[in-house]
Amino acid sequence: MSGWLAVAGLGPGAADLVTPEVETALAEATDIVGYGPYVARVPNRPELRVHASDNRVEYERACLALELAAQGRRVVVVSSGDPGVFAMAAAVFEAVEAGPESWRELAIRVLPGITAMLAASAHVGAPLGHDFCCINLSDNLKPWSLIEHRLRHAAEADFAMAFYNPRSQARPQGFERALAVLRECCGDDRLIVFARAVSTAEERTRVTTLGDARADMADMRTLVIVGSSRTRLVPRPGQPFVYTPRSAS
Amino acid sequence: MSGWLAVAGLGPGAADLVTPEVETALAEATDIVGYGPYVARVPNRPELRVHASDNRVEYERACLALELAAQGRRVVVVSSGDPGVFAMAAAVFEAVEAGPESWRELAIRVLPGITAMLAASAHVGAPLGHDFCCINLSDNLKPWSLIEHRLRHAAEADFAMAFYNPRSQARPQGFERALAVLRECCGDDRLIVFARAVSTAEERTRVTTLGDARADMADMRTLVIVGSSRTRLVPRPGQPFVYTPRSAS
Repeated sequence: MSGWLAVAGLGPGAADLVTPEVETALAEATDIVGYGPYVARVPNRPELRVHASDNRVEYERACLALELAAQGRRVVVVSSGDPGVFAMAAAVFEAVEAGPESWRELAIRVLPGITAMLAASAHVGAPLGHDFCCINLSDNLKPWSLIEHRLRHAAEADFAMAFYNPRSQARPQGFERALAVLRECCGDDRLIVFARAVSTAEERTRVTTLGDARADMADMRTLVIVGSSRTRLVPRPGQPFVYTPRSAS
Repeated sequence: MSGWLAVAGLGPGAADLVTPEVETALAEATDIVGYGPYVARVPNRPELRVHASDNRVEYERACLALELAAQGRRVVVVSSGDPGVFAMAAAVFEAVEAGPESWRELAIRVLPGITAMLAASAHVGAPLGHDFCCINLSDNLKPWSLIEHRLRHAAEADFAMAFYNPRSQARPQGFERALAVLRECCGDDRLIVFARAVSTAEERTRVTTLGDARADMADMRTLVIVGSSRTRLVPRPGQPFVYTPRSAS
């Protein structure tokens, strides 16, 4: 059988949020390639070759996967969430574009998954129920000035906003600055949701306002959602519902 | 057993893109509530009560589902894609907020699904691989002026953009105007993807530029993605790959 490459989304963590399409690809694979903690979520089989790598080597990992597929292996690159949202799919296509011409003829598929913002949104209600944007707050691959530029336009557009990678130990100050810009643009009363590790045993959710939000409410496993001006909180016993109405007026 | 309400995402169409979590809820349900074509995707059982309704009665449908759950029924409201993205979840929480206090104590869960933009993005590569926004182009529930305002800020932020409900027979001119604004803000060379009915038998995908895009390339089953200034096309035999690099520079 000739080789192929599938870039698959494992969803946010729970086994029942993995699509059957992804399960089929994993069952057919000869090789699994990915960041260690994601590879660890794939059930092992004696004949399965597992290539676990460290974080921040996405491009090298993509090249390895493409080389294996070119050798005739059936390769699944695993991502958390959806592979197309701040995950491995873009790295694979960067490698395809820069690599040998023959890589363009490989059978390459991207298999979508439940990305963190959809799991987090579902967990608290429907805060992304109207127009929204999705920003990676990590400044590894873009300057802070661009992040701030996007935050200001997103606020001006009155989008709800989902933020990936809000805060790392190496760059704790970035999220502080983001919160300050958001408070300036959206006011202290705007709703904010911190949804950590949704669908896993470490899940923790907090709903508050920008005025009461502190940077240490997030870590790198937290998905942050800031509501639009229309996002509403519905108090109830236990965790409130948060949703954005369908209508803009 | 006491009643509950689950708002479930059936994904874009293919059976293997429905999560096991959603399948479990459908199997446990006593009642299915939703728009006719979505309800038709649920396997019938003799004891299952099916409440199919017309389009554009989301609020009434949500109230019916809440009433059934309050009576002790196990109710699944079905949406295409993800229920939290321009679908039924927001309508349910609007009804909860406006309805009797007792509805707030109901067991209500939102079960995420593969939303159309993730399926469309996966289908062509990774055009949403960097910061992006997601806009409903229907002017049913918001004025055109707000749509244009958001398009201009999204272009200024240099987001990739995913558009839901680009074009209906009743309002064909809206998408024409959106394309004109986008050409003005992003230029004729900007990549645009038309992904119709991804993962179904009626699937049809076209990759072109804003300069060559025509409004009739979309209908209400089409998900449209416009790239950022950095989105790239990788030619290959057959359909090209389209992706947005992870890095902004």
